[in-house]
Amino acid sequence: MIMASGPGPHVVIVGCGFAGLAAARGLRRTAARITIVDRSNHHLFQPLLYQVATAALSPADIAAPIRRILRGQRNVAVMLAEATGVDVPGKRLLLADGQLDYDILVVATGATHAYFGHDEWAEHATGLKSLGDALLIRQRFLMAFEVAEREPDEARRRAWMTFVIVGAGPTGVELAGTLAEVTRQTLARDFRHINTASARVILVEAGSRVLPAYSEDLSEAARQQLERLGVSVWTGVKVTDIDAEGIHIGSERVPARTVLWAAGVAASPLAASLGVPLDRAGRVPVAPELTLPGRDDVYVIGDLAHIEQDGALVPGVAPAAIQQGDCAARNIVATLRGRPRESFRYVDKGMLATIGRGAAVARIGRFKASGYLAWLLWLFVHILFLIGFRNRLVVMIQWAWSYFTFDRGARLITAPLREPLVESPVDRSAS
Amino acid sequence: MIMASGPGPHVVIVGCGFAGLAAARGLRRTAARITIVDRSNHHLFQPLLYQVATAALSPADIAAPIRRILRGQRNVAVMLAEATGVDVPGKRLLLADGQLDYDILVVATGATHAYFGHDEWAEHATGLKSLGDALLIRQRFLMAFEVAEREPDEARRRAWMTFVIVGAGPTGVELAGTLAEVTRQTLARDFRHINTASARVILVEAGSRVLPAYSEDLSEAARQQLERLGVSVWTGVKVTDIDAEGIHIGSERVPARTVLWAAGVAASPLAASLGVPLDRAGRVPVAPELTLPGRDDVYVIGDLAHIEQDGALVPGVAPAAIQQGDCAARNIVATLRGRPRESFRYVDKGMLATIGRGAAVARIGRFKASGYLAWLLWLFVHILFLIGFRNRLVVMIQWAWSYFTFDRGARLITAPLREPLVESPVDRSAS
Repeated sequence: MIMASGPGPHVVIVGCGFAGLAAARGLRRTAARITIVDRSNHHLFQPLLYQVATAALSPADIAAPIRRILRGQRNVAVMLAEATGVDVPGKRLLLADGQLDYDILVVATGATHAYFGHDEWAEHATGLKSLGDALLIRQRFLMAFEVAEREPDEARRRAWMTFVIVGAGPTGVELAGTLAEVTRQTLARDFRHINTASARVILVEAGSRVLPAYSEDLSEAARQQLERLGVSVWTGVKVTDIDAEGIHIGSERVPARTVLWAAGVAASPLAASLGVPLDRAGRVPVAPELTLPGRDDVYVIGDLAHIEQDGALVPGVAPAAIQQGDCAARNIVATLRGRPRESFRYVDKGMLATIGRGAAVARIGRFKASGYLAWLLWLFVHILFLIGFRNRLVVMIQWAWSYFTFDRGARLITAPLREPLVESPVDRSAS
Repeated sequence: MIMASGPGPHVVIVGCGFAGLAAARGLRRTAARITIVDRSNHHLFQPLLYQVATAALSPADIAAPIRRILRGQRNVAVMLAEATGVDVPGKRLLLADGQLDYDILVVATGATHAYFGHDEWAEHATGLKSLGDALLIRQRFLMAFEVAEREPDEARRRAWMTFVIVGAGPTGVELAGTLAEVTRQTLARDFRHINTASARVILVEAGSRVLPAYSEDLSEAARQQLERLGVSVWTGVKVTDIDAEGIHIGSERVPARTVLWAAGVAASPLAASLGVPLDRAGRVPVAPELTLPGRDDVYVIGDLAHIEQDGALVPGVAPAAIQQGDCAARNIVATLRGRPRESFRYVDKGMLATIGRGAAVARIGRFKASGYLAWLLWLFVHILFLIGFRNRLVVMIQWAWSYFTFDRGARLITAPLREPLVESPVDRSAS
């Protein structure tokens, strides 16, 4: 028996991101027996994931075990398992190693990277969705400097010191700005043979401007702040190829050993098994009550849901996911009590994107800000919403520390060094 | 050119543990050009590694990038590389991808686990030497409870909830005590189907008592404290086999899915290339000046060195390693200035071993303590010697937090869930 025991209906929630967690919490005072299924054992504070990738924070600072978060809620059982599909008519969630019957299903499995039909790029251009991704990116960029320090050939050294980030949405902008800062400040005194400040950080965007979800003046402010930090911003250019040694941007070949991917969103493959038409990104167009069209017992929420409101798509951001989780929980409660359900309405409280130290853009209602004020706002909001008091305190100290010292404590390569760093043995004798 | 530039002799230090780091620092005011070679990019505060393995601390709390530690010391260059051997007559250090000429070599590559000729056990019985090891152990014990929570078969569940630690030296005692604490306190309210407090933690020791380096009364005190925490202590029994499903101890078979290895020390394989006879554990018996017998230009220090003093071996502990690093540096300086070198003499300041919350044993000179007082002493000493102010502060907060709440924030499985957790598909339908 895998489910929480009790007399109520069995609600299965797949995915414990912002949406799934909000749905579970919204059902805490009900008789529902809840099983929350996730393939990782932690809830991730995704907006700060780039800080782990750039070695400012440790995984434990931005993630908390799902079991700990929910241990006080006695009607929830947590299951670590990989969901592979949904048998909608049979009311069963299929797992890699079993299945799970449900009365009500909440699908909140989010999105992953899309390589626009070029899945072979995934190997060379790491995306940033999980803690594993973040640790891999950290390892790649730290290792790039280590190899550059030992590389005698000028052209090859340059390729190791070139970092290309594809996609200028919030994640791409955060990665580019922070990497530029790290190369120019944090690592500046650490190497003897290379000048880390000469590293190139290139942000590539197919659209005409960075942060396209923001107004044009804020986009322009973001670009200026990026360039001030040392980032080369290339807009209106398309990536045509990526391999282990570099990237083709338009007709130009840029030798670069580190390419990071922050473009394209593909909804979780679970959506395909729901038996309804999906949008171009694989998302599920849901009914106003957040249910699967034609089914009252399946909810789809978070980044996986396609919801139009006032002629635009509800954005894939944490506040929207949380609001959807809350709404789905209220609708499940309403159903259980025989009351009418409500239509979802996204309340846009604003948008914040950070670029680097003291650099950010913000929109709150009609109020717009950029630079230091926007950054302070970003800092305040993100620390406020971090899960768990301990994390908040530790993150605050680590940020204060790195703010005043330009230091990043988590600069660790934790995987063992198995292969030689450079391809051909070179005589490195001193003389 | 890979070496620090300057007119002085080229000193190559292999290994940046306590011994190697002390040697590098001891040469800071000299004209020596130093290259420090390590296969990882960080110095590790090894005495707290078990805290990472048991999810109390993050890797960044107990490790610091070597480049950061030494960036103020302009006569040091840091090289991330794997040393494979030494060409003693040719005065060259051989690397996996090159070589490095030296005038003076300091070998401080330490020790690793020894499986007593049973290398096939390594796969099932994880040892604890690196951050990678610690993260693997963390993953294994957290995953064991996840699998147990979903395992319907009583006997198999019991095997997942049995943890065997082989070897009752300081590392084994720390791991056993902390694991018992975690199962009985931290995880107690997290699971719905298993009672984590019923997990078995077995500490196996071939010798007649735990912590054999301590006096008999302290050994006995340690055993009592372990048993109070819920550890079964089996002394005087030998491990005869380990496989994926269990362990043979003497003639008894214990089904256990998690076996940890804290027995046996084998010196780094680099020792074999030095061309001198080694002791049984592969360590290098050194001259009183810490040099390779017959060679003035090669020093061997730290856990790799075999040094007898007053009829006993100098122990492989951090203070001994630091004292050897200091002594080697002084002897190198003496040689450069044409002065006589000194013989190494270990000053034993005492020993400390922790067992769990408020449980430890200590010996300082003739003063002995066990229990709460010894634990406070242990805490004070370890926080004091942690590298870097930031780490000290963060670790202190995290310990205070987990002391008062019994919580461990770093309970994260960061590797992706790739394979099904249980072997055979089981119908886990609710009903």
